[in-house]
Amino acid sequence: MPSSKRSALFSHDIKVRYAETDQMGIVHHSVYVVYLEAARTELWDAIGYPYAKLEKEGFIVPVVSVFIKYLKPAYYGDIITVDIMDLVVDGRIRFHYEYEITRGNELLATAKTEHVFVNEKFRPIRIPEKFLKIIEGIKSGELLPKK
Amino acid sequence: MPSSKRSALFSHDIKVRYAETDQMGIVHHSVYVVYLEAARTELWDAIGYPYAKLEKEGFIVPVVSVFIKYLKPAYYGDIITVDIMDLVVDGRIRFHYEYEITRGNELLATAKTEHVFVNEKFRPIRIPEKFLKIIEGIKSGELLPKK
Amino acid sequence: MPSSKRSALFSHDIKVRYAETDQMGIVHHSVYVVYLEAARTELWDAIGYPYAKLEKEGFIVPVVSVFIKYLKPAYYGDIITVDIMDLVVDGRIRFHYEYEITRGNELLATAKTEHVFVNEKFRPIRIPEKFLKIIEGIKSGELLPKK
Amino acid sequence: MPSSKRSALFSHDIKVRYAETDQMGIVHHSVYVVYLEAARTELWDAIGYPYAKLEKEGFIVPVVSVFIKYLKPAYYGDIITVDIMDLVVDGRIRFHYEYEITRGNELLATAKTEHVFVNEKFRPIRIPEKFLKIIEGIKSGELLPKK
Repeated sequence: MPSSKRSALFSHDIKVRYAETDQMGIVHHSVYVVYLEAARTELWDAIGYPYAKLEKEGFIVPVVSVFIKYLKPAYYGDIITVDIMDLVVDGRIRFHYEYEITRGNELLATAKTEHVFVNEKFRPIRIPEKFLKIIEGIKSGELLPKK
Repeated sequence: MPSSKRSALFSHDIKVRYAETDQMGIVHHSVYVVYLEAARTELWDAIGYPYAKLEKEGFIVPVVSVFIKYLKPAYYGDIITVDIMDLVVDGRIRFHYEYEITRGNELLATAKTEHVFVNEKFRPIRIPEKFLKIIEGIKSGELLPKK
Repeated sequence: MPSSKRSALFSHDIKVRYAETDQMGIVHHSVYVVYLEAARTELWDAIGYPYAKLEKEGFIVPVVSVFIKYLKPAYYGDIITVDIMDLVVDGRIRFHYEYEITRGNELLATAKTEHVFVNEKFRPIRIPEKFLKIIEGIKSGELLPKK
Repeated sequence: MPSSKRSALFSHDIKVRYAETDQMGIVHHSVYVVYLEAARTELWDAIGYPYAKLEKEGFIVPVVSVFIKYLKPAYYGDIITVDIMDLVVDGRIRFHYEYEITRGNELLATAKTEHVFVNEKFRPIRIPEKFLKIIEGIKSGELLPKK
């Protein structure tokens, strides 16, 4: 199955580590969750607002759901690409990312992660205004480096 | 949110490891995927058909999708329970597990994983007859140790 | 190679998870570091002073060195035992644990981890008096549950 | 502590992932074992003999010991460098790598890993002649890309 025609908002390449394989000889399915997070980190680095800075400012943005559909296995040494296809605000509280993981032209997996901002008691809060603007700037491409 | 009223087919307790936490001070969300797998392993051990044996017989049963909804964080040292709530055959190829992860009476997460049997080229095959029977025996409780 | 004749101060059983294997078909060597830590956690739980409590009191006790010698592989589904063979104070700052990892009578690995107490800037401090006493109580067996 | 004056045979940069941190707010010490392995993978890729190819040819080269000394913590988002400082043949069976892990001019850790070639029963065999030559070519710099 080829990857979707949609173009990615942002792409991040990852080389598969030996430790990430399992005895089936493929990348363990739990590792994809880490790959998605690495791509999000790179996205926020790319717009000049590293997630580490965001946490230092007191914002906590946990994942509230993960969905991954595995289509083809990835192998040790592969260079795979995590494409962030979309970033969507779902009302006042939630937002989500959509992903494709590819190896060249092959689509290996699709995924979605949902997130909320929480207070120090891990209770969801409204998405802060400034992040709504940042998300808008990512979607429009305005905040992203030119390809 | 309390856990569901449904009773579990099978339950497996896990103690959270330090290495499983992240700098948010909670269990990293990728680790839940490993917890679900650990519970499946225990289930197959409990019915006397360890997954390791199944692989030695040439069966390969990869995960084809994972969905996890995170409701409350888990912490280092917590003893959490992975409840396998259901095991469902979805036609000739796919089957899935439904889970609840709890800490005492608190529901921490719900999850679903889908699986297929594949041949040596990782192409899905029909669920072998004997596994349909095993799944039936798990669902009826016949194959499981008495609580 | 059989395990040493020395008796363990404390033993902790661990079941190998599928995610912990690699494509060599054995437990990935990085995972042993996590197993050692899990055994330390259990030891501190057993004496009624969970490490989580220790951290809440403001003590931080990072690992400053790890040495592991791998003798035989461990496999998915194995139940292995981490034996804490000794706990030794090395002067005013450092202390270390010695370990054997076994599967039944087979010695799979030996290990040593060194630790220090640090202040909030991660600078080593003298081992607090109360912990010297606790270590003494562990070594003498006084603080440990009767076998 | 600054890093050693010795120049590295080979260097590999790694960006710290969120999942690699623990609740102490630093990279979990087990992760360094994975970083060392990632650097070895890159080294073998760089000389045009990927480790994946080596395994396909039937060679299995497990780690037989790991030693890591942790000097300073690494943090989420850091770009750290794994320097392979030396690669040494220790007799007919064993060989080892020496490493420094740095962040800019700061030395974060030093490490050593020992390896053997094994047969299909995981029994050590003599280092195959062709690998002695490759190791020589790595040490002399002949096989490595010009910096």
